[in-house]
Amino acid sequence: MVTKVFSAEQLDDKDPLRLKRDEFALPKDTIYLDGNSLGPLPKAAEVRAHDVVKRQWGDGLITSWNQHQWISMPTRVGDRIGQLIGAASGQVVCCDSISINLFKVLSAALKMNPSRKIIATNRDNFPTDIYMVQGLLDLLGDEYSLRYIDEGNICNELDEDVAVVMLTQVNFRTGKKLDMQKMTAFAQSKGILTLWDLAHSAGAFPVDLDACSVDFAVGCTYKYLNGGPGAPAFIYVAQRHQKDYQQPLSGWMGHSAPFEFSPDYTPDRSIKQNLCGTPGVIGMSILEASLTVFDGVSLKAIDEKSKKLQAFFIAEAKSAGVLDEFTLVSPNVDNRGSQIALAHSDAYAICQAWIAKGVIADFRAPNILRIGFAPLYLCFKDIEIAVQKLSEIIKKQEYKHDIFRQKQAVT
Amino acid sequence: MVTKVFSAEQLDDKDPLRLKRDEFALPKDTIYLDGNSLGPLPKAAEVRAHDVVKRQWGDGLITSWNQHQWISMPTRVGDRIGQLIGAASGQVVCCDSISINLFKVLSAALKMNPSRKIIATNRDNFPTDIYMVQGLLDLLGDEYSLRYIDEGNICNELDEDVAVVMLTQVNFRTGKKLDMQKMTAFAQSKGILTLWDLAHSAGAFPVDLDACSVDFAVGCTYKYLNGGPGAPAFIYVAQRHQKDYQQPLSGWMGHSAPFEFSPDYTPDRSIKQNLCGTPGVIGMSILEASLTVFDGVSLKAIDEKSKKLQAFFIAEAKSAGVLDEFTLVSPNVDNRGSQIALAHSDAYAICQAWIAKGVIADFRAPNILRIGFAPLYLCFKDIEIAVQKLSEIIKKQEYKHDIFRQKQAVT
Repeated sequence: MVTKVFSAEQLDDKDPLRLKRDEFALPKDTIYLDGNSLGPLPKAAEVRAHDVVKRQWGDGLITSWNQHQWISMPTRVGDRIGQLIGAASGQVVCCDSISINLFKVLSAALKMNPSRKIIATNRDNFPTDIYMVQGLLDLLGDEYSLRYIDEGNICNELDEDVAVVMLTQVNFRTGKKLDMQKMTAFAQSKGILTLWDLAHSAGAFPVDLDACSVDFAVGCTYKYLNGGPGAPAFIYVAQRHQKDYQQPLSGWMGHSAPFEFSPDYTPDRSIKQNLCGTPGVIGMSILEASLTVFDGVSLKAIDEKSKKLQAFFIAEAKSAGVLDEFTLVSPNVDNRGSQIALAHSDAYAICQAWIAKGVIADFRAPNILRIGFAPLYLCFKDIEIAVQKLSEIIKKQEYKHDIFRQKQAVT
Repeated sequence: MVTKVFSAEQLDDKDPLRLKRDEFALPKDTIYLDGNSLGPLPKAAEVRAHDVVKRQWGDGLITSWNQHQWISMPTRVGDRIGQLIGAASGQVVCCDSISINLFKVLSAALKMNPSRKIIATNRDNFPTDIYMVQGLLDLLGDEYSLRYIDEGNICNELDEDVAVVMLTQVNFRTGKKLDMQKMTAFAQSKGILTLWDLAHSAGAFPVDLDACSVDFAVGCTYKYLNGGPGAPAFIYVAQRHQKDYQQPLSGWMGHSAPFEFSPDYTPDRSIKQNLCGTPGVIGMSILEASLTVFDGVSLKAIDEKSKKLQAFFIAEAKSAGVLDEFTLVSPNVDNRGSQIALAHSDAYAICQAWIAKGVIADFRAPNILRIGFAPLYLCFKDIEIAVQKLSEIIKKQEYKHDIFRQKQAVT
């Protein structure tokens, strides 16, 4: 039995971020612990959706490319994201998906390190990251290969054959967080370019790409950045690399003068070269509005609250006797992202039963109940109620009901 | 002087599509002749934008992937587009941009025709189509090359060295329309795979991909399909090729079982293999609603009305003495798409002056005034007024005012 030092109400009262919750349009009677899959709707995004559709598209029509600055949106939104990941302006652009952005960067990196033919990554990286390497290598032929490394043993496994190492800072299943500074420095000491996937980092805690001297990064915006389902991703190319960088998805929006309609591709020698086709204006505009929830908030404050929410969850779950039923597969709080992963052979059904009680978390195959902590809209009272409901599900074995075992298209 | 057989009012009265205009939220006092750059806002799209943002994302959160069938949207929307381009179901998927989709198809086509190393296209194809070939070839190395052909002389210029020929059915500047059936058959008689870009075709007139036995096609949805700025594109792979087709942008959404999170990519052996990253749900959902304006309408009826609108424009412009000031660079009506291109050394300023009078057309470098005819929302009265305003601009030389000569970011 853990003695509570403060009640949920007391913790909420003294939470410096408590007013941020009002900036989200959260559904009633729902506790949302899945903002690391899809962040909820910021009220500003709802307003912007109407504005970009009705006023900008409907009334402005084609003139909005200039009048409402659609044409500069990818770099404008990129710079705003850059502020949240420690990137000075001119190094981040918003475009496409993480998968496609990985293809761009990996191709460019191989070209920039031409004497080396290996891409290294860890086997439990998010599958699409690995799939994109497989697709690229299949296109390039036998000269190139993928090497799996144990990210816990990077110093022994990365050698001077490797052109680029691709790592996801926070593991999507366990939440394990890698030491970006140390691993980047080590890789670079071997002449290896570094590519970080920030899917579970951006908006969750401080990231310092410039300070860590990272070479490249990608990330998505629909998790902790609350950009909406399938919101466009981003790509970071350190300023020092931009003059030599050349990526193969050379669509017209990455051209140095797209509206001259020249038949020859001349890349824009800036981060804009990563643009390819016409950007998805509506989705990106909604994302731009969503990012305003980060105005006036530091990532440090978000990180501090996340750690308190996680500690409170663990204390409550221990106190309710729930934690004994699971295996905690996340590392300790300093070595994980803003999530807790609990393994259980019935994790899928438990997750469904929790959802049926109004607590939305995530299942990740094969056996992980994944709980995301997004401090801008979660309060301690949410955590208290969520644990109470989980406790009912476990103690009464409610998850054994057939209805919770039926698999859905998206799990 | 051309004698009018019918007045604009009479033509509008007997127009079988006249009620369709009410399905669009057109701004007042604007005549829109640029639906071939960006189609206007359908009212159904405005309703859907609110629904997908507020109810589906805001209230449904992550559960909407199943509950609101987000996960099946790319193929569902693909099939709806397929109906408009003569493709039986299971052959079209909605995803990414034309540029990115070209990269997928071109890569796959080279692999399917491995003894040949040449991609053929015409030099005045839309630049991004050519740029994507350049990017791909730069990645693949010297073994492969791009060959420019004169599409007017295809029978002499396509030979058995060519792996794939990439053609845009309607030229973006002149509106020249290629004979899809004849050119496809000729290319295939030489063992060449065919890739058609339908950017200016889909939604404008009947396209019969299946009947023409086309191999591959791509197209965008923000022009005649009115999907909204940067709406996602589509890709067609003929059923007969799907089992051998493999494209390199192998993101998780193209995997045969994406939620099993296997570390090895196994492509879905269907059109879905063209999916890469997480789809942009909001933009695609808005597009899905936009497509309902095509319900109950045949492309044949749209094409017939377009030809009448074009004939009326030419008759009015001749009658007003305007046409003498321009060079008509479009072919005759049977050999062009749903647009008319007029060349003039001051086309940019004329276009700006026309916009200032409420008639939105497009300028295309170096000297083209491009006029798009979209029969679902344009009426004959629009054309009459548009020509009157153009006539004022020309006769009073209003376009010589400095204000109309200032170049904008997007021209």
